[in-house]
Amino acid sequence: MILLDSHIHSEGRSVEDLRNMSDAGIKYAITCAFYPIQPLYPETLIDLFRKLVDYESERGNRAGMKIYASVGIHPRCIPPKWDKVVDFMEHDYGWIAFGEIGLEKADKVEKDVLRSQLKLAKKLDMPCIIHTPRKNKEVITEKIFEILERVEFPESLCLIDHIDNRIIGKVIERDYIAGLTVQPGKLNIDDAAKLVLEFGDERFIANSDTGFSESDMLAVAKLAEKINSENVLLKNGFKFFRIK
Amino acid sequence: MILLDSHIHSEGRSVEDLRNMSDAGIKYAITCAFYPIQPLYPETLIDLFRKLVDYESERGNRAGMKIYASVGIHPRCIPPKWDKVVDFMEHDYGWIAFGEIGLEKADKVEKDVLRSQLKLAKKLDMPCIIHTPRKNKEVITEKIFEILERVEFPESLCLIDHIDNRIIGKVIERDYIAGLTVQPGKLNIDDAAKLVLEFGDERFIANSDTGFSESDMLAVAKLAEKINSENVLLKNGFKFFRIK
Repeated sequence: MILLDSHIHSEGRSVEDLRNMSDAGIKYAITCAFYPIQPLYPETLIDLFRKLVDYESERGNRAGMKIYASVGIHPRCIPPKWDKVVDFMEHDYGWIAFGEIGLEKADKVEKDVLRSQLKLAKKLDMPCIIHTPRKNKEVITEKIFEILERVEFPESLCLIDHIDNRIIGKVIERDYIAGLTVQPGKLNIDDAAKLVLEFGDERFIANSDTGFSESDMLAVAKLAEKINSENVLLKNGFKFFRIK
Repeated sequence: MILLDSHIHSEGRSVEDLRNMSDAGIKYAITCAFYPIQPLYPETLIDLFRKLVDYESERGNRAGMKIYASVGIHPRCIPPKWDKVVDFMEHDYGWIAFGEIGLEKADKVEKDVLRSQLKLAKKLDMPCIIHTPRKNKEVITEKIFEILERVEFPESLCLIDHIDNRIIGKVIERDYIAGLTVQPGKLNIDDAAKLVLEFGDERFIANSDTGFSESDMLAVAKLAEKINSENVLLKNGFKFFRIK
């Protein structure tokens, strides 16, 4: 089966790793913007976005995998003068989504940055990958919902990622798409399969979040051995990200 | 045997790759600055240098490998206003060398950037890893020598990297250190071993140049199976980079 991994950080993976993923059937992946230290300059993120579009896609090609870029300001790496980054995101430079964006601690700056990016995404009709944190997941996700509702963000553009048992009900009742992140410390394969069984396979998109740290880059391929859903493993992603 | 790889781009390797290197005996590595697209901003390189020092060393620790940072402007990724980057390199931020710096096509900007970095390195008494290109290696390396001689650059601070049969004689006669880059497309293990046999093991430091592209990350460990020289594989590097 051909698979799509909706959330990786390809920069943290060697080209041989990407080849392993491709050999396991993962032929499509979305690489999400993240900078692993606090950047001192907005320009660093602008060049990072160019790198994701121009270079990571090329590394993907060499590995037999189509890599699409998703750009945005992650709440853990907000630079000073972040509005310059959001201004750059208004360009059409070849990315297919904004992300990962979201909240980590939900302080004022994080909320301002998320709101600003969501407003732009709404204006541009751009799908968004929204990060939810490990710590205080329920409380912080509620704050994300509040912001989404206040900007009247279209449900069809909103993927709430790294969902778990605690928040999935609220994601589904709001008609958002849910990101099933299968990874040690997040969901295991059995938990992910149970959620699909309970809520159906129309609302989920599978991903590994593999990247800079130790991680199971083949998580989506392993999930495919457990659940036989082309929707969760490919088609819902194609539809959400408008891949043709 | 404990090994040192004097030239890697750890950013292009997953933490599992670094663990493989460490398991093969490569317990020390120098990660060299490089940006795989043309950066639009000098600030991008400043944040990159901070990332190499603060984050790549941490990834190395997790993999059981001591990673040291080498920073500088590679001739293939010179940003506008590059003097801002050189100004930042005057800080003592925790790197142990400048590199890779050097010439690729040897146009005026490349020469200006190299000269400026060498002058600063001389002032700061900083070891330099000097890149020589694949194409026109002999001609371009001569131009590097001219610049080194014009700034009266100390031989003991100068590692001429990616040497081959064509340029090794000139590197040795000038009393520079020679970087043995064992990698498909550069030196193979037999060629590297022959050079050490011919010129002795006092002037060479082994490296893999493993990084963003497909490459043999265990090249230095494989060389260690062929040549039994603690000088080439560890001690010369410790001395050159002043690692204690």
